[in-house]
Amino acid sequence: MVIIMQPGAGDAEVHGVVERIQSYGMDAHISRGKERTIIGLIGDEREIDFDSIAALPGVERAIPILKPYKFVSRNVHPADTIIDVGGVKIGRELAFMAGPCSVEEEDTTLRIAQAVKDAGAQFFRGGAFKPRTSVWSFQGLREKGLEILSKVRAATGMPIVTEIMDASDIAIVGEHTDIYQVGMRNMRNYTLLVELGKVRKPVLLKRGDSSNLEEWLAAADYIVRGGNESVILCERGIRTFENYTRNTLDLNAVCGAKNECCLPVFVDPSHGTGRSEMVLPMSKAAIACGADGLLLEVHVDPKKAWSDGKQTITPEALKELIVQCRRMRQAT
Amino acid sequence: MVIIMQPGAGDAEVHGVVERIQSYGMDAHISRGKERTIIGLIGDEREIDFDSIAALPGVERAIPILKPYKFVSRNVHPADTIIDVGGVKIGRELAFMAGPCSVEEEDTTLRIAQAVKDAGAQFFRGGAFKPRTSVWSFQGLREKGLEILSKVRAATGMPIVTEIMDASDIAIVGEHTDIYQVGMRNMRNYTLLVELGKVRKPVLLKRGDSSNLEEWLAAADYIVRGGNESVILCERGIRTFENYTRNTLDLNAVCGAKNECCLPVFVDPSHGTGRSEMVLPMSKAAIACGADGLLLEVHVDPKKAWSDGKQTITPEALKELIVQCRRMRQAT
Amino acid sequence: MVIIMQPGAGDAEVHGVVERIQSYGMDAHISRGKERTIIGLIGDEREIDFDSIAALPGVERAIPILKPYKFVSRNVHPADTIIDVGGVKIGRELAFMAGPCSVEEEDTTLRIAQAVKDAGAQFFRGGAFKPRTSVWSFQGLREKGLEILSKVRAATGMPIVTEIMDASDIAIVGEHTDIYQVGMRNMRNYTLLVELGKVRKPVLLKRGDSSNLEEWLAAADYIVRGGNESVILCERGIRTFENYTRNTLDLNAVCGAKNECCLPVFVDPSHGTGRSEMVLPMSKAAIACGADGLLLEVHVDPKKAWSDGKQTITPEALKELIVQCRRMRQAT
Amino acid sequence: MVIIMQPGAGDAEVHGVVERIQSYGMDAHISRGKERTIIGLIGDEREIDFDSIAALPGVERAIPILKPYKFVSRNVHPADTIIDVGGVKIGRELAFMAGPCSVEEEDTTLRIAQAVKDAGAQFFRGGAFKPRTSVWSFQGLREKGLEILSKVRAATGMPIVTEIMDASDIAIVGEHTDIYQVGMRNMRNYTLLVELGKVRKPVLLKRGDSSNLEEWLAAADYIVRGGNESVILCERGIRTFENYTRNTLDLNAVCGAKNECCLPVFVDPSHGTGRSEMVLPMSKAAIACGADGLLLEVHVDPKKAWSDGKQTITPEALKELIVQCRRMRQAT
Repeated sequence: MVIIMQPGAGDAEVHGVVERIQSYGMDAHISRGKERTIIGLIGDEREIDFDSIAALPGVERAIPILKPYKFVSRNVHPADTIIDVGGVKIGRELAFMAGPCSVEEEDTTLRIAQAVKDAGAQFFRGGAFKPRTSVWSFQGLREKGLEILSKVRAATGMPIVTEIMDASDIAIVGEHTDIYQVGMRNMRNYTLLVELGKVRKPVLLKRGDSSNLEEWLAAADYIVRGGNESVILCERGIRTFENYTRNTLDLNAVCGAKNECCLPVFVDPSHGTGRSEMVLPMSKAAIACGADGLLLEVHVDPKKAWSDGKQTITPEALKELIVQCRRMRQAT
Repeated sequence: MVIIMQPGAGDAEVHGVVERIQSYGMDAHISRGKERTIIGLIGDEREIDFDSIAALPGVERAIPILKPYKFVSRNVHPADTIIDVGGVKIGRELAFMAGPCSVEEEDTTLRIAQAVKDAGAQFFRGGAFKPRTSVWSFQGLREKGLEILSKVRAATGMPIVTEIMDASDIAIVGEHTDIYQVGMRNMRNYTLLVELGKVRKPVLLKRGDSSNLEEWLAAADYIVRGGNESVILCERGIRTFENYTRNTLDLNAVCGAKNECCLPVFVDPSHGTGRSEMVLPMSKAAIACGADGLLLEVHVDPKKAWSDGKQTITPEALKELIVQCRRMRQAT
Repeated sequence: MVIIMQPGAGDAEVHGVVERIQSYGMDAHISRGKERTIIGLIGDEREIDFDSIAALPGVERAIPILKPYKFVSRNVHPADTIIDVGGVKIGRELAFMAGPCSVEEEDTTLRIAQAVKDAGAQFFRGGAFKPRTSVWSFQGLREKGLEILSKVRAATGMPIVTEIMDASDIAIVGEHTDIYQVGMRNMRNYTLLVELGKVRKPVLLKRGDSSNLEEWLAAADYIVRGGNESVILCERGIRTFENYTRNTLDLNAVCGAKNECCLPVFVDPSHGTGRSEMVLPMSKAAIACGADGLLLEVHVDPKKAWSDGKQTITPEALKELIVQCRRMRQAT
Repeated sequence: MVIIMQPGAGDAEVHGVVERIQSYGMDAHISRGKERTIIGLIGDEREIDFDSIAALPGVERAIPILKPYKFVSRNVHPADTIIDVGGVKIGRELAFMAGPCSVEEEDTTLRIAQAVKDAGAQFFRGGAFKPRTSVWSFQGLREKGLEILSKVRAATGMPIVTEIMDASDIAIVGEHTDIYQVGMRNMRNYTLLVELGKVRKPVLLKRGDSSNLEEWLAAADYIVRGGNESVILCERGIRTFENYTRNTLDLNAVCGAKNECCLPVFVDPSHGTGRSEMVLPMSKAAIACGADGLLLEVHVDPKKAWSDGKQTITPEALKELIVQCRRMRQAT
């Protein structure tokens, strides 16, 4: 932490800051300039409250230097984390997770699953528990949906990715899924993250729509610190003033996450754009800037999808997308 | 819902949309213009998936007309909801909830409580469970903090407001609190909202930092639909590009919420600004545009507060603030 | 400026930074910590390029300390700037500028002017040059509109506020206006700001819809540095994800501007909300948190206004608004 | 335009809307539903004021259907606009515009120019007029800088791209540049856009940092309507809450612009990221999703650049970038 004193701050104020720093068992380095004094705190600032120093008399600003995460940082963990699920080495080889937004009736779901498998996807995704803005909207098939997912796995051999909405559902969802998906609304549900740190299944952690890169990586740190190192990050767009697209897909964040942390980074171009005609080009862009995989909404009949039809593509489009993305990867 | 067809859409496409609308048991009204056809859906569009229509062939845009909430709407519930807690009629008389960000050691917490009571606050607030961006930060005193809150109530008679982070904590938190506070990170934790709909204690629902007015009211609808009508809304700032303040306090939303829905609306100027010197003027502004109460961070020694010291005011400042806000209310 | 070196930065990198600082004739203070070295630059960092240091080898971050403005800062100019226009002391007494969005036909405009004067407004506002998103929209009456404004002044004695869109129009607009208004789209039109620094008429400078507080004050510094100290700031809402209102009125910024700089600060609740029913409560909130005046869209028949009818109030509503705002001011 | 009436609106209100529509010489289609009446306006709504209808009694919402632009729309102009500058067919073949942020002393500038030409760039970019947030920052070499640009063209044969900040500089800048660059701060400087519509040189129009896709295309329409069809769009990042990067590069907008309009679309990954290490991956992503070219900050010694050093790459890095982008283009 760097503490910048106000122009008029005197010895007493500087002394007060140094004393507070020392009370945490840390050291202070003082730089006296012509106009201002600057104090550097030496030690692990993550464990002390930032504001307890920013609020001291004479302090103009306190600037954090350490990141709010540790275990997922490239400094601590320089090598790429590779996560093996059903033989696919996520983080090393390109991975495609595809399926409907919501799990639907068994036969439709099985047809979609077979079709995305044939198109080249290695994982099946589909939501049984659906977080919905309005209590009046369809909330997912819930337990019945989970059972359909197990049938998909049995029928196709594809590992399953499905959303977990609450810590109390970890056991039941775990019976049917291979990867827990944490949706953007739950990125800051720390109770859930702490509990997912105790399981031994991979977690796909979507970025919150108002969370910056640091906060996203700090959320991953909650899971990894608990002992579960198998976290996959997933960028799915942030909320901005732009309304042509459902969200603003922030591919800068893919690049930044790859640079700053060791985890695989996925992209969800379906939610990131909200428009089916943009899924292909934005998928290619995601791969071009280093994404390790994609999460895609696919339906055999998008216009009959129970949710998110507007951003859903067909299995035929998925097949072409996978071909083009693999070509893109090779060119990179 | 209004469905705007693409310029070139023909009879087959229009027919497809009408058929889909009728399959939901609703009616369609067709307007054929020179350039485009517009179709109006008549019925409760909240129960059907928006995208299932937006994705149909020939559709350019589908525009929702009904709000994603119902029970909290002024249309359905024109009268102000008044919530009586410990004799204070929230929604009718001005209410002040004050205390430290985090519950601290028993003696400090009791001293703060007595001081805010003397200053004129009717409710004591303090966090035992603290949602923190970094797993390395102080996470609250948890159960021990809850017990201290009960002692505060016993000693001062003040009703308690404290944060609930997870549905599984409803019972334990309920033993010690009079009002459940849902923090901004949990506004979209629908499992929690559904469970809070089943209790018979008021809920203070903070607005998510990237949630718009409609989504905020829709979150309140989750609780009210469950049977718990005692919801207090609380604006606490949204996330924007501005970084002079911790958040951008959106007082427009206070006005909007008062117009659109029946619930009392509070403001948290501490988080809404992040700067103690701005708490007084923004409190007055909140009251001036119609807020029913304030949630304030107060500490006997802000620079020693365990968290959020920079935005915390003293009991003396609180006393003056309450005097000025009451004067402001009278002038309104 | 504070320069934070990367963890592994060695003597050569530190030396490189120091050398660069000294090449600007400034001093460097070095703090060596256990993990990192921190270098403080002592001198007026505003005159050197920030990035020329941030890009040096071994530098992790360079953090500015000085603000990008000087003359309008409270540090340099502690006293409030008071601007006398037609006998009204802006910055000391509450001022109301009211009128239609666009200047309309002469008789309508004169009727509006007389009505807002009767309602208690001291200034008449109306746009002759209209910046419009679409080239297909009405662009204002232009020169003809300016002449109508002069007639309003002659008929009512009210000083005029009207928008200037380009530096080349300063002379012609100056013949008809008492205060130049710089719209939000032009806050960063530095050519215009520099030229307005040379005139001797007040400038009302609206905040850009994506400009933060520092950038807004830095824009004012362009004008003041040129010798024109009569700048009035005007907050009119920023662009966020919220679409219930036309913009998000940022009253925090009013407070912040009053604290950081010496200039009068106005609020435009018409554009700040885009909804006529919110103009009164948000006007009161603006006054409650310290605004020095208001800019308001008023029309004798809002639904016939040539532009912005939805956010326009009637003269009767204006009269009531002025009464309530004056009462609010007294209570503050 | 679609006008949605309030639930309680009666015949008088509906009649009022219809009358207003007819007063513009347009037609109204009425749809009466169980709860609401919906009115469709048939005609070119761009020419009437939106609010004049939204403000009528009984109207809940008025929703625009037509876009605020016409000439640049794919509907009106389905074919790609191809712009030939110095033999390079912009919009058909990949184009690279590279050079320093600011034009520097003659010898440095010439060295950079030769180096970017050798690396494969076809255009030289460099700013002589620099819009700067702070009046205390370096404002560019201005006329002297323009002359250096002419020398670059003479020495290397490369066409020049340089920024125009004000309509009054069109002639002088035109003597030295082949393409006028309109910076993001001037995207809404309509006086400048109108004047650029009268020249016969291409304009590179950067997107404003708070402008959405529609507004950007509407700005282009200002130029094209004036008769200058040679407009190149350039996405350079928007302003969001994320501060890891200087801006949030919105590649969705590249895709959207290519779908909705006929103009070539460029990307500026230097400003779009603000970090030199991200320029290569984001350049590849831009090409992958369909960008027609790149605008890049390049300097022979980035750490000595007069401005923007942190986001500047070397000619060697540029060479590699061009190779990889061409490979990416082929794979697309």
